[in-house]
Amino acid sequence: METTTQIISKQELLNHWIGHRALTRKVIDKFPENDFFEFSIGGMRPFAKLVTELLAIGAPGIKAIVERSASTFNEEAATFTTKADYLAAWDAATDAITRDWDGVKEEQFEEMFNLFGQYNFPVLQNILYFIDNEIHHRAQGYVYLRALGIEPPFFWDRY
Amino acid sequence: METTTQIISKQELLNHWIGHRALTRKVIDKFPENDFFEFSIGGMRPFAKLVTELLAIGAPGIKAIVERSASTFNEEAATFTTKADYLAAWDAATDAITRDWDGVKEEQFEEMFNLFGQYNFPVLQNILYFIDNEIHHRAQGYVYLRALGIEPPFFWDRY
Repeated sequence: METTTQIISKQELLNHWIGHRALTRKVIDKFPENDFFEFSIGGMRPFAKLVTELLAIGAPGIKAIVERSASTFNEEAATFTTKADYLAAWDAATDAITRDWDGVKEEQFEEMFNLFGQYNFPVLQNILYFIDNEIHHRAQGYVYLRALGIEPPFFWDRY
Repeated sequence: METTTQIISKQELLNHWIGHRALTRKVIDKFPENDFFEFSIGGMRPFAKLVTELLAIGAPGIKAIVERSASTFNEEAATFTTKADYLAAWDAATDAITRDWDGVKEEQFEEMFNLFGQYNFPVLQNILYFIDNEIHHRAQGYVYLRALGIEPPFFWDRY
C-alpha cells in the first residue's frame, strides 16, 4: 500500500468525470433533432453515432470493471432514434456510473483488466480512456455545432 | 496526510499527459503548412492558433505553479510563422514540463493557486484543465484534418 499523499482521490476523479458528462449532455442538447442524426463533416460519424459509442463505453465499462466480467462492446444496446431517448440514456448512464463507482476499489486501479475482452490495460488506463475519449468526441460535436452556426456551451460549464 | 492507496501517482499523471502531448505533436505534423495557419471551420481558429493557446498554457502553467508566480497568460510568446517552429516549441515545452514536474509537490495538488492571476482553483483542477483542454482542441484538429481529406493519427497512438 502506498502511503504517499494522493494527488487525486477516487471521489475527485468521479466528480471530474461527472462534470464532463454534464457538459457532454449540454452539447447533445444543443443539436437540432435532424442534425444530431445526420450532420457530419469529412465523412465522420454524425454526433448521435459518437454518443452511441460513448454510451457503449462509459457505464458498461465501469460495470464490467466492478463485476470483472467479460462482457463485450455493444453499440446496438445504445442506439436510439430520438434525441430525447439519447438524453434519457445519458442520464441513466450517469446514474449507473455514480452508483457502480463504489464497487471500483482503490487497489484495483493498478490491476490489469481485459475490458470488453479486448483492451487489456490497468483499470486506471481504461477509466482515463473513457474520460479522454468523451472529451475527444464531444469536441467533434463542438465543431459540428459551429459549422451549423450554433454557439456551443463553454468548455468550463460542467454543472 | 492521506494514507489511502493512491489511484494515480504524480509520475503516472505526467506520463499520461506526455503521451497526449506526443499525439498532439503528430496531429500538428499531419497538417499541410498553409492549412495549419489558414484552414478553419465555422469561424473557429485555425489549428496554429489553437496550438498557440496550448503552448501558452501547459509549460508556462506548470512553471507558474512551481514558482507560485503571478505570471500572466501570454500568447504572443507562443506565436510562430512556420510549422517547424511550432513543432520545435512543442518539443521544448514538453521538455520544460517534464523538468519542472518534480517541483510540483504531491501536497500542492489540493492547494488553491490563482493561475495567470485569474484562474483560482486547486492545482489539481488547473493541471487537469491543461490536459483536458489539449484533448479538446486537438480533437478540433482531427475534424479539420478529416475535412481536408487527411487521415488523422489513431487516438491511442501516444508514443
